[in-house]
Amino acid sequence: MSKTIVTHEEILAYHAQFPAGKIGSCITKSLHTPRDIILAYTPGVGTVCQEIVASNDKVYQYTGKGNLVAVISNGTAVLGYGNIGPLAAKPVMEAKAMILKRFAGIDAFDIEIDVTTPEDVIQIIKAIAPTFGALNLEDIKAPECFQIEEALMAQLQIPVMHDDQHATAIVASAALLNALLVANKDISKVQIVFSGAGAGAIATAKLLMVLGAKPDHIVMCDRQGVIRKDREKLDPIKAPFATDRSVHTLHDAVTGADVFIGLSSGDVLMAESVAKMAKDPIVFGLANPVPEISYEAVMSARADVIFATGRGDYPNQVNNLLAFPYIFRGALDVQASAITTAMQQAAVQAIQTLAHEETPVMIRKYYGSNSSFGKEYLLPKPMDSRLLSVVSIAVAQAAIASDVAKKLITDWDAYRGELWERVGHQNA
Amino acid sequence: MSKTIVTHEEILAYHAQFPAGKIGSCITKSLHTPRDIILAYTPGVGTVCQEIVASNDKVYQYTGKGNLVAVISNGTAVLGYGNIGPLAAKPVMEAKAMILKRFAGIDAFDIEIDVTTPEDVIQIIKAIAPTFGALNLEDIKAPECFQIEEALMAQLQIPVMHDDQHATAIVASAALLNALLVANKDISKVQIVFSGAGAGAIATAKLLMVLGAKPDHIVMCDRQGVIRKDREKLDPIKAPFATDRSVHTLHDAVTGADVFIGLSSGDVLMAESVAKMAKDPIVFGLANPVPEISYEAVMSARADVIFATGRGDYPNQVNNLLAFPYIFRGALDVQASAITTAMQQAAVQAIQTLAHEETPVMIRKYYGSNSSFGKEYLLPKPMDSRLLSVVSIAVAQAAIASDVAKKLITDWDAYRGELWERVGHQNA
Repeated sequence: MSKTIVTHEEILAYHAQFPAGKIGSCITKSLHTPRDIILAYTPGVGTVCQEIVASNDKVYQYTGKGNLVAVISNGTAVLGYGNIGPLAAKPVMEAKAMILKRFAGIDAFDIEIDVTTPEDVIQIIKAIAPTFGALNLEDIKAPECFQIEEALMAQLQIPVMHDDQHATAIVASAALLNALLVANKDISKVQIVFSGAGAGAIATAKLLMVLGAKPDHIVMCDRQGVIRKDREKLDPIKAPFATDRSVHTLHDAVTGADVFIGLSSGDVLMAESVAKMAKDPIVFGLANPVPEISYEAVMSARADVIFATGRGDYPNQVNNLLAFPYIFRGALDVQASAITTAMQQAAVQAIQTLAHEETPVMIRKYYGSNSSFGKEYLLPKPMDSRLLSVVSIAVAQAAIASDVAKKLITDWDAYRGELWERVGHQNA
Repeated sequence: MSKTIVTHEEILAYHAQFPAGKIGSCITKSLHTPRDIILAYTPGVGTVCQEIVASNDKVYQYTGKGNLVAVISNGTAVLGYGNIGPLAAKPVMEAKAMILKRFAGIDAFDIEIDVTTPEDVIQIIKAIAPTFGALNLEDIKAPECFQIEEALMAQLQIPVMHDDQHATAIVASAALLNALLVANKDISKVQIVFSGAGAGAIATAKLLMVLGAKPDHIVMCDRQGVIRKDREKLDPIKAPFATDRSVHTLHDAVTGADVFIGLSSGDVLMAESVAKMAKDPIVFGLANPVPEISYEAVMSARADVIFATGRGDYPNQVNNLLAFPYIFRGALDVQASAITTAMQQAAVQAIQTLAHEETPVMIRKYYGSNSSFGKEYLLPKPMDSRLLSVVSIAVAQAAIASDVAKKLITDWDAYRGELWERVGHQNA
């Protein structure tokens, strides 16, 4: 594949170009005549208020709530930069909102909040929740993110998803299932090592267990090394993944392992360690922007490795944008009250299976010849427009099957057409 | 003028038409190629985060913050409906956001919050403030709204304006100054009676005093009648407007008065009371949707009356949309840290003066022959596109003169051109 190079100047120019930033508001009804003002505003709008007072659910019929998602962050765990605060987090949150609009036709905007304790974050988000149809939590640090998501899911009747946990877990799981197919290995038999024990790693480990990975085949490492059962002051969130094997370092842990999943920080995995993994090893270096091991280093270590990163400029980008726009699309369209594990599993399967299909011409044009299923094409590409219908429909169907849908869809062909209509509506 | 009639069905159909509601998000940069994703999202966006970490003010250069306004309400004082809560308030807040976009090119969206105590409201709004360039508080009940606005103005470095107070005060003041011109009366000599002692009435009384009205010429009435100095448990917010004159009822108070300003509730002023006012009386029945006295009743009472309402289907609509979009436009464009009284006065003067100018053909087409200055044309019409440059420039200049502007404008002709460009960018 050809590597896309962009300069700092190009990035800054892209963001600064008038109008600054990446997302704005647009009006969706005519407001050109005095009559329009009477309909939209005073005195007409009072009629709509009264309808909603009489029946709260009509807010979905007469306002944008049902297609509206907030991308919310306090900026405590942004990309590879850590706790940079709400202002500096804004460009990332705008990007997420932009992706929700561009790829799934969701009216999304970013909310940066200036609070850090779980109690405060929960209180703020609960208070603004009536505005939205669903909430996308983003770049909130672990372990606070677990408590925050859990409390909001329990207390709100709209879907709440912490993208760094679940979209990451979904896309990494889809990539891993396909990598296992390529390597001809069984998920219930492989030895899996995690580097990182934050939001993404914990959620991925949990989802892989749902998908068949064995708890005692998983070893997880954090900054202190292997998380062992005999560790003093063992964090209760990490405890389910603690091992009693006699391994202490990441290098020890990966020796002989089948799978390495890095959701930690750059350059923590040595080429020498990769060389000691089992035959046909699977190495996912998902830290961003610098992966746990570079493409070049891993390829120099051995030829039989299957490698993925979080970056768009190498093969096999494990990018949560393959999942989150369509998970929210499907959940909104059936007015799901939550995003269940069954909906997550449905998304994994939809993404995994799409990579087996023949690749569209448009995608081959962008990404070159390595665009059919194999060790350099474990996942569909972000630009693959088939993701919209395939993933959204899978998620919506799973929501109905999980009994969390307030609105049913019966004609799936008609729904597929509506999805295309929604996304066709908007453009840059 | 011809009255515009709309039915409940037309109002509901307008709001329900796909996509439901009145405002959505739009992406403002290209997101079509793999290179776009690298620029907008990962790994490119990290460069922008780092720029903002190094210099917080760059958030204005690289994100939408500088053109972004939240319309925030807890739904405790909506239109004429009172405390209907956040969900039922949403259609009104969407309308405000839509108006900010349509008339002033401001990226605005609505936030409905599910808290009511001043402490909670202040905490929630402070927490989400980093997201926005300015905050438009809306339909929050008195007296809480005063404490909330004051605290937020003191604690935040971005403009915060409670529209129901200040935009109402500005437009009502502009209308009154023009009505006084028509009646050939002097603001420092007229007797003014308020019906209502809520957000709009208190703010209007305060602004009229800044503009020359004499405190001892003002009588204010609430649900208990005239607010007198000898009232037990006199509310400290109402105290500055308490009178020691021997008047007890609204009818007593308006007898012989020059000006009645109603910001209370429907049908509280009798035609018999209007008949007892001074020669050439000015009567503003601004309650919405039902004014304090109807157009028909006031016209049957006497011929020399100058009458205004809050409605778009009668002459002289005192509509805060003449002010709030352009006040925010001017304040954002100079990165004002606050909206000062001088900026409010500048807006009053700009709106007042515009009504003296020859009316554009487009406006005469919509509103018929009564579209030149006089007792049935005290204010420009909401659709008058000249408001954009006239009011925004006046506000921006006053911000610079008040020394609250972080960004200076020197070429006002170029700025006028940019204003038109901004508003031309978007359409329904």
